[in-house]
Amino acid sequence: MQTNVQNPNITETPSLVASDMVVGTAVYDPQDQKIGSVERLILEKSSGRVSYAVLSFGGFLGIGEDYYPVPWQMLTYDEAVGGFRVNISREQIEGAPKYNPSDEYDWSSDNGRRVSDHYGVPPFSTTAM
Amino acid sequence: MQTNVQNPNITETPSLVASDMVVGTAVYDPQDQKIGSVERLILEKSSGRVSYAVLSFGGFLGIGEDYYPVPWQMLTYDEAVGGFRVNISREQIEGAPKYNPSDEYDWSSDNGRRVSDHYGVPPFSTTAM
Repeated sequence: MQTNVQNPNITETPSLVASDMVVGTAVYDPQDQKIGSVERLILEKSSGRVSYAVLSFGGFLGIGEDYYPVPWQMLTYDEAVGGFRVNISREQIEGAPKYNPSDEYDWSSDNGRRVSDHYGVPPFSTTAM
Repeated sequence: MQTNVQNPNITETPSLVASDMVVGTAVYDPQDQKIGSVERLILEKSSGRVSYAVLSFGGFLGIGEDYYPVPWQMLTYDEAVGGFRVNISREQIEGAPKYNPSDEYDWSSDNGRRVSDHYGVPPFSTTAM
């Protein structure tokens, strides 16, 4: 088992990770540039699958403090950097669905489709598997 | 969309829920008795599925402050009570795999199997679906 050297109470194995460890994790682009971090995870209740990661890019790309829902399947955990890898361009982020951290986001299926369409990935299915 | 009246910033729809909303949520037995709460979620990285909910029962069943990994499929979200329903007996909890909150739990597949076997559910598969 791997142990996080910064905090021995944080639990991680090659295949499992605690949700509270994912939140706050850095997000990197394919060029190893840190571009943001994970703010929260959105779960589908019945299947228990993560449907969206809500990312922030403020401070890295200089595009403000908004929250960006991104389809979970776009994130790949990279053990080497201890963070998530995501292939998103600055142009994609600038036009992406977002919300203000102090507002409530409308997690309707319409908005879900807007997110999937924007990133060109298959829509999240709410069907239990 | 449903809005949590206590906190309008907490986002919930009938099918989606934020991970930070799940943590801290009450857990009820089939007799509507509040028996504990969710302390953390353990995710399978590649599939993004929740594999375990880590529950605490201290203060409700008087069995101390230990943390109990429970297979996620045993929890059912009940909109009516705004919490999770789980069918676990006191006897099941007393003999269940547990760990001290200040210790690290070994999330190996052997321990995963012990958890599944204890509750009589199919073992969590780490295969992406």
